[in-house]
Amino acid sequence: MLPADEMTDATPTAPPGAQRVVLAGPWRLRRGGELPSLTLAYETWGELNAARDNVVLIYTGLSPSSHAAATAAHPEAGWWEYVIGPGKPIDTRRWFVVCVNSLGSCFGSTGPASLDPRSGRPYRLRFPYLSVEDIAHAGWDVVRSLDIERLRVVIGASLGGMSALALAIEYPEAVDQLVTISAATHATPSAIALRSLQREIIRSDPAWRDGDYASGAGPVQGMRLARKLGLISYRSAEEWLIRFGRERVEPSPAAFDPQFQVEAYLDANAGKFAQHFDANCYLYLSRAMDDFDIAEHGGSAGAGLSRIQARRTLVVGVETDSLFPLYQQREIAEGLDELGREVEFVALPSLQGHDAFLVDTARYTPLLCDFFARA
Amino acid sequence: MLPADEMTDATPTAPPGAQRVVLAGPWRLRRGGELPSLTLAYETWGELNAARDNVVLIYTGLSPSSHAAATAAHPEAGWWEYVIGPGKPIDTRRWFVVCVNSLGSCFGSTGPASLDPRSGRPYRLRFPYLSVEDIAHAGWDVVRSLDIERLRVVIGASLGGMSALALAIEYPEAVDQLVTISAATHATPSAIALRSLQREIIRSDPAWRDGDYASGAGPVQGMRLARKLGLISYRSAEEWLIRFGRERVEPSPAAFDPQFQVEAYLDANAGKFAQHFDANCYLYLSRAMDDFDIAEHGGSAGAGLSRIQARRTLVVGVETDSLFPLYQQREIAEGLDELGREVEFVALPSLQGHDAFLVDTARYTPLLCDFFARA
Repeated sequence: MLPADEMTDATPTAPPGAQRVVLAGPWRLRRGGELPSLTLAYETWGELNAARDNVVLIYTGLSPSSHAAATAAHPEAGWWEYVIGPGKPIDTRRWFVVCVNSLGSCFGSTGPASLDPRSGRPYRLRFPYLSVEDIAHAGWDVVRSLDIERLRVVIGASLGGMSALALAIEYPEAVDQLVTISAATHATPSAIALRSLQREIIRSDPAWRDGDYASGAGPVQGMRLARKLGLISYRSAEEWLIRFGRERVEPSPAAFDPQFQVEAYLDANAGKFAQHFDANCYLYLSRAMDDFDIAEHGGSAGAGLSRIQARRTLVVGVETDSLFPLYQQREIAEGLDELGREVEFVALPSLQGHDAFLVDTARYTPLLCDFFARA
Repeated sequence: MLPADEMTDATPTAPPGAQRVVLAGPWRLRRGGELPSLTLAYETWGELNAARDNVVLIYTGLSPSSHAAATAAHPEAGWWEYVIGPGKPIDTRRWFVVCVNSLGSCFGSTGPASLDPRSGRPYRLRFPYLSVEDIAHAGWDVVRSLDIERLRVVIGASLGGMSALALAIEYPEAVDQLVTISAATHATPSAIALRSLQREIIRSDPAWRDGDYASGAGPVQGMRLARKLGLISYRSAEEWLIRFGRERVEPSPAAFDPQFQVEAYLDANAGKFAQHFDANCYLYLSRAMDDFDIAEHGGSAGAGLSRIQARRTLVVGVETDSLFPLYQQREIAEGLDELGREVEFVALPSLQGHDAFLVDTARYTPLLCDFFARA
């Protein structure tokens, strides 16, 4: 096991106060290759009880860090602030909550942007081929490093929902209850097309340099453009019609500058994202989502689902989600139901598409309150 | 009036056998600026009758040339081959059909890629700001140059449908009957977001050089990527699910090469497009679609529609079209109906999204046959 200092990432950093665990290797990845060791950043909320049986593990989507909610060490609001805390849906007076920065990401966990201890240089494209199962496995290793042998609930949305499914399939004994939100047993061809195009946009930026960009000099413009495409796929046409309509911004004399509010919104959001997310990490995580297919676990989606032993499952989807469409949520729920598992399926009419779990607090708060109250 | 030879485009060419008309200027554009003269490429099918009252004008979408169907001079199939010809929906034994390459495009008509006769250099970004109304006006000028004073039918899909609407609003006396397919009275914020991103992708290609690329050395990669995004918006998730599923291609050793059939399809299609479409022309035409809003004609969409005097209108839309969604077709039809106009609204369940008019021959053939038989 290496000292954590030697594992310091090339550019990315963990959120202030995040804990890091260093796991000795060799740590083998699903599609080949191994890591000599790995560091994973995580944060926790609430207290582990004496029986060590009040644990909720949260897997994140593609882009967030472990900072799902404010902590004493880092009081800034997290990406799921309305969900985690005293009196909130995942009530930290009762639950011990763990959120892990995904393997392959860039906020304190080992990924393409971190140093390969064998060479002292960043992995970049020498990082092994990453799969969703590896992300699930790494998150589970973090929990086990805390001497926890079973999760009361594993929960995730988007990529996090895929990771939660992967954990429940590969480590069925670990999962007492499962919540998937806007997830899927595999990516649709449309979702693959969108993500493949995002990756090609990033790789087409000359600053990408086949992944060998210098720290702080990556393909910022490619990342901006890819993020804009991401935002288009994360939200819904219905929401933007109401939110932006055809409102214009101040006219600019420059040709082809943004003219409409919707363009200015994309600009502002994408600029922020491109400054802090590592491009190679994005490529690896994005491709992992395309590849994920639980049919690899037994030959069919049904066979994959049959490995899940969760006592109770909640499957949530959103009517306006075009990236992980509602019928994919129904497939998970109906698949489990046909296997005789206890499963609840909730279709939300939120306008915010794939991103609804982040912003539609009015619908998600009571839904998650109810689930966790009975967990 | 200048000899047509002096108007030869910098890179683009008209289809073989296309006719070109040169209009003396100054020709003023809607949003300011003027052209000293303009050339417009067009093709015709069938014979103009003695009364000169059997004329059908076709406006194209963003990317096609005037080559809507095979001609004696150019027997290669056109982009609407199944629609135009003897015994076809627009039966050329009866109709005299004219299709114009849009003003601002690059297949023989004046646009950013053609030479400014005042300087002898290509216009590029010195081309005046282009609007859909200018495209409609230029097409109408072609028809008038043939001593035709009234159209029996004007028809267009996508941008062509916007152009047909613009003509019917600005030259109501010119239009006896109107057909709009997958059109809109204005662009939605989602459509604006997609097109704005396409334009930014093109402009981010270093080979764009602020529009001053050398002939044949334009932003090919930017155009490839923009076209892929276009294709994603033109087709539907439902179609791709059936057509591609998760079929894979031969594995490639190169990192991030296409893995799925859907990626290979986008690659093949986009490569072809990027080789023959001029980037600056694309930017101008794309922006014109964002700007179009018939509310500019009288203060509201209803006021704009009220200018239309067509004796009969057919409005067609497709359930799976996310770029020009079906409710936008319904708005056109209901708006005309409320004004007491004779209008027929057809919602097709085609799987091919915005592109259905190009490929769903089984649904469009009888629909258009019926309309033109009674025209």
